[in-house]
Amino acid sequence: MPSIRLYTEVELFSGASIALGSQQSHYINNVMRQKAGHFILLFNGVNGEWRGQIEEFGRGWCNILVLECTKKLTASADVWLLFAPVKKIRIDFIASKSTELGASAIQPVFTEFTRVGRVNIDRLKSNTIEAAEQCGALVIPEVREPENLSQLINIWPGERQLLVCDNRIGRPPILNALKNVKERGSWAILVGPEGGFSECELDQIQQKANPVFVSLGPRILRTDTAVVAALTCWQSVLGDWAYNTQ
Amino acid sequence: MPSIRLYTEVELFSGASIALGSQQSHYINNVMRQKAGHFILLFNGVNGEWRGQIEEFGRGWCNILVLECTKKLTASADVWLLFAPVKKIRIDFIASKSTELGASAIQPVFTEFTRVGRVNIDRLKSNTIEAAEQCGALVIPEVREPENLSQLINIWPGERQLLVCDNRIGRPPILNALKNVKERGSWAILVGPEGGFSECELDQIQQKANPVFVSLGPRILRTDTAVVAALTCWQSVLGDWAYNTQ
Repeated sequence: MPSIRLYTEVELFSGASIALGSQQSHYINNVMRQKAGHFILLFNGVNGEWRGQIEEFGRGWCNILVLECTKKLTASADVWLLFAPVKKIRIDFIASKSTELGASAIQPVFTEFTRVGRVNIDRLKSNTIEAAEQCGALVIPEVREPENLSQLINIWPGERQLLVCDNRIGRPPILNALKNVKERGSWAILVGPEGGFSECELDQIQQKANPVFVSLGPRILRTDTAVVAALTCWQSVLGDWAYNTQ
Repeated sequence: MPSIRLYTEVELFSGASIALGSQQSHYINNVMRQKAGHFILLFNGVNGEWRGQIEEFGRGWCNILVLECTKKLTASADVWLLFAPVKKIRIDFIASKSTELGASAIQPVFTEFTRVGRVNIDRLKSNTIEAAEQCGALVIPEVREPENLSQLINIWPGERQLLVCDNRIGRPPILNALKNVKERGSWAILVGPEGGFSECELDQIQQKANPVFVSLGPRILRTDTAVVAALTCWQSVLGDWAYNTQ
């Protein structure tokens, strides 16, 4: 199998001849030292994964002839990740790890106790693409613009179930709560800042979003740890870790 | 509750008067701007967590009067984390996140496909202490010297069960495998490098360590993601996420 695996936005089908831009052709040619005739893998989030053959390099471009499909797109889990933004490398990790763990959309949410005021959405997008290229994902999570939690909850879509990670005493362990779920359906996971949610936020969530509150164990997890933990449990019970037919 | 929570190696009991060194007293006094009479929390991995009152600051030291126990030490999960070392920030994160997730020991293991040849053990130890201070853990994982996988497996203690994360086709999902476990007992989780284990390594593990092989879903996880995912599942089924009486 070729070891280069790249994301593209163009349509992929057998016989298509596609042009990659300067960044990808530089990577193929100068970093990975591939030549015309060599093979790479391509995916676009829509048509699955395809094997392609390098036809020709030019100045700042290269042409790929798309050959055959190597992995078909199957229905993937419908789980959004809503998270309170954190700083620098930790938010990069949230983007890449939620891609590895198959989130379908990621959205930063500002909460009362969130300390980070700005989010670089383009950087999050690059992180999701890079992670998808490396981890073998066929789709890239949709990266949404940041939103205030209360605005989001106020118009919460009734058909989407909301899993809220909140370590107040009395919350059931996440796995127990998920095991009681009857339908897989559409989900969102909400992970707050390290200070947790305010009483006011919890009240609003309770009233508007029919939430499932869960605990992530007896210790206080960093936001990026909580994201991986919650998505892991969700995929293990309701997602493609449980139902994958790989 | 005091917001400063520090690890110390001295014995903690009601009435003890203990001296903290220059780093911790600088943190209390200059960073957190606490004064004599204010309160902090202390833990040492053995006596639980205690409230203490600042008595006096000196040059490079401060005295704390230990008052009462705020959290008793309960039996904690006996789960080692064995992991193929990775670079820089990712190995720091493995140390801190395995502390947040309650690993009892962490040990870097060199495998055939491991690309990192040296590990800074002191740095790993600092990361576990810092994480324990922040996450409310009462114990710090023991940080072990790196070892070659084959040497470790060769003398594997028969009474310790070994969970091996390995995404070959046919491995059961981690949660299914853990649900079939009859006894909690003593465990170790082995997470390999991103290239996985060699056939030779898998054979040796199979012969010597009576392993439980498990899959972590259909995508290829980075080592640090796999560590969080595997410890989360283990704690959720066999550890203090399931049995916590907080």
